Amino acid sequence: MTTTQTSTLPAIDATHDSALQSWVMSANGHPQFPIQNLPLGVFDAGEGARIGTAIGNEVLDLAAALEWGLLPTLDMATEAALHSDTLNAWMALSAAQRSLLRAALSDLLQAQTASGRQASAFARQLLRPQDACRMLLPADVGDYSDFYAGIHHAVNAGRIFRPDNPLLPNYKHVPIAYHGRSSSIRPSGTPLQRPIGQIRRDTPEGPAPELGPTERLDYELELAIWVGAGNPLGTQIPIEQASAHIAGFGLFNDWSARDLQAWEYQPLGPFTGKNFMSSVSPWVVTQEALAPFRGPAMARAEGDPRPLPYLNHEDDQRNGGLRIQLEVLLSTASMREQGLAPHRLSIGDSSHLYWTPAQMLTQQTIGGCNARAGDLLGSGTISAPTPDGYGALLEITEGGKKPVQLANGETRTFLQDGDEIIFRGWCEREGFARIGLGECRGRVQG
Amino acid sequence: MTTTQTSTLPAIDATHDSALQSWVMSANGHPQFPIQNLPLGVFDAGEGARIGTAIGNEVLDLAAALEWGLLPTLDMATEAALHSDTLNAWMALSAAQRSLLRAALSDLLQAQTASGRQASAFARQLLRPQDACRMLLPADVGDYSDFYAGIHHAVNAGRIFRPDNPLLPNYKHVPIAYHGRSSSIRPSGTPLQRPIGQIRRDTPEGPAPELGPTERLDYELELAIWVGAGNPLGTQIPIEQASAHIAGFGLFNDWSARDLQAWEYQPLGPFTGKNFMSSVSPWVVTQEALAPFRGPAMARAEGDPRPLPYLNHEDDQRNGGLRIQLEVLLSTASMREQGLAPHRLSIGDSSHLYWTPAQMLTQQTIGGCNARAGDLLGSGTISAPTPDGYGALLEITEGGKKPVQLANGETRTFLQDGDEIIFRGWCEREGFARIGLGECRGRVQG
Repeated sequence: MTTTQTSTLPAIDATHDSALQSWVMSANGHPQFPIQNLPLGVFDAGEGARIGTAIGNEVLDLAAALEWGLLPTLDMATEAALHSDTLNAWMALSAAQRSLLRAALSDLLQAQTASGRQASAFARQLLRPQDACRMLLPADVGDYSDFYAGIHHAVNAGRIFRPDNPLLPNYKHVPIAYHGRSSSIRPSGTPLQRPIGQIRRDTPEGPAPELGPTERLDYELELAIWVGAGNPLGTQIPIEQASAHIAGFGLFNDWSARDLQAWEYQPLGPFTGKNFMSSVSPWVVTQEALAPFRGPAMARAEGDPRPLPYLNHEDDQRNGGLRIQLEVLLSTASMREQGLAPHRLSIGDSSHLYWTPAQMLTQQTIGGCNARAGDLLGSGTISAPTPDGYGALLEITEGGKKPVQLANGETRTFLQDGDEIIFRGWCEREGFARIGLGECRGRVQG
Repeated sequence: MTTTQTSTLPAIDATHDSALQSWVMSANGHPQFPIQNLPLGVFDAGEGARIGTAIGNEVLDLAAALEWGLLPTLDMATEAALHSDTLNAWMALSAAQRSLLRAALSDLLQAQTASGRQASAFARQLLRPQDACRMLLPADVGDYSDFYAGIHHAVNAGRIFRPDNPLLPNYKHVPIAYHGRSSSIRPSGTPLQRPIGQIRRDTPEGPAPELGPTERLDYELELAIWVGAGNPLGTQIPIEQASAHIAGFGLFNDWSARDLQAWEYQPLGPFTGKNFMSSVSPWVVTQEALAPFRGPAMARAEGDPRPLPYLNHEDDQRNGGLRIQLEVLLSTASMREQGLAPHRLSIGDSSHLYWTPAQMLTQQTIGGCNARAGDLLGSGTISAPTPDGYGALLEITEGGKKPVQLANGETRTFLQDGDEIIFRGWCEREGFARIGLGECRGRVQG
């Protein structure tokens, strides 16, 4: 593999101009979905699954925009992708095609353009209130793999499972990951059934497992990384091209049953402790939309090894990091009964990922494994260095030893039935419109 | 979950009668595909992917049989499934529907039945020589998970990776598994590209990883377990129903790069060490065909724990085990140049699985994880207690320390470029026709 130093990360362009205004009035100043964002998702407003873009409080129906002749500049592959009922075909487009679509959508939704004025006349045909839309899974996920790139989480969790040896010797050389379960990935809002499984208890005769509902149900705050165009089996996606193979990002909750996990995970990794469900936010915030919110990869500590050349690319080191603010909220049944706002469990950001998304995708394919459009990578749990930014209850409560005190007087070690976990993510930077990744929610059912 | 003791394993019936003869003459006495077998697969004889059943040296085109009105007793769902280009819809049928199809195919292919005489007149329209067919992947694999149920392998491999602690305390309580990579599963005959990845070497400055081609490429002899009808998220497949949710079996090679695996696998399990490709045999030998070749689950050693009730079902313990003979052959480039037959590396059988297929599927869904028709379970490497039946070079060569001597004078620790690994599987029992699982082959390319 030769390493060219050409960037495959999208550039900041006119679509990011903070002065842009939309004829969709709720978009202007919207904290999540201003015209500078334009995330894609799959919605159902009663007519089946259709592809849309979030704009303010509305969803723009992209197939309808095509049918009304409002997106005349798209090529046939892009048109076909927007007529689908999943985003897989859109993800399979080239980065250049995705950029052209973004430019066309920005043009269509602006207040001051000719095509925006034309489109605004079709507002009733094009727009659906987000409140009236059920959001579906963005894509059929072929393979889902979960990385472990949040280094503070790796240290914190490692300390609990392996006190003597929290961070294993491979961690700073290899972007560690395992394959997860695709079938049980669900969109935000899907209730979570508390799983049962084997739990090892101490009995007078010694430790013995029993079957029962997990008593250590946890969430894990992660980024969802949606894979774009894939690669044929037997080839790699080299680091300098990896960003072009990433279509977008979302929020991902890798629900975990810590007691099941602790008992089963050796020697082959998590299985029933995590395969019961994972939740993902419905809007795919594009690689293009995030251009202003890139930054250097996580600074390596003094003495850390340099990444091997196949993982080391100048542009990725300079711009491959993501600056996404991440917040975790807990709404308990009592809070909802009392009309109280959810309690914030943590706030942090995605700069604590030791490996960039490009490094993750390159690692996954280094041996020739083929990626497919619609594959999902989890970033691994993202924790800040301090407890106010820890990305899982396992860390916040030190493995259940220190209950967290909630604002209404309740306490939690792990999740109880009725608890709802809400992730929020957004990007802010001076001179740019704030954009959001939306929410990823799930409520625990007993 | 209440446990009823009714069997969901298919019974031995008239389709297993060893006296049955087919009008397809090559089937009579065929060591793999007599009329008592009737495995399903997806073939391409130049007209695209079609579903067929292997009969002697031929493939019976099932869509053609329907088109010629030769399978009049099938219901619409079964008819639709046979018109597909994968076996997913057939796998999604009920066990009762699969049994009815088997009975209809047996009737159609018999020499002495009315429908057999009728069908034989259409031989030219119905049959394709197997030699002229390219066999495709039987199904779109949604999720693939790999178990670890070969207890002798678990001990042997554990001794190499963890000399002090070969069999972990969970092994005899939990059917251990990890999720694997679906995208890189390929049908028998697909060449294997030698993967590259991180290998940790000893250097004067201490151990340091480098990128390079694996030097410890290995195979793993496993059974493929094809999942039939799935279950909704949040529900389980209880042990007493699990067999009805298994459509059939094949041979599976979980190719492994031991050097990549050793460096990366902690704490989350194998990733690039196994995701570069897996090979599966093309014919799905049905749960129904295997009825005569069931037997007790592996006898537990004195002092072994009883399985927890959710994994313990009388009929599964009595009949849930499989008696499949398994052989591994190696054909090197030199052997082929010299016109020599492949060298047998091992011969053993599937009775060394500590957990039954039903226990595996129940374990996978115990927390509510949904299975889907076409999911694939690997059994885990099957090794006999003695070296002549070890299912991987890792075990045969004691981690590469003791080269294996081949019949032509060559030696191997791990696989070299040009080496072809061939798995064969078959079932024999006094009073019954021998049936085969066919072959799973793959040749290593540099």
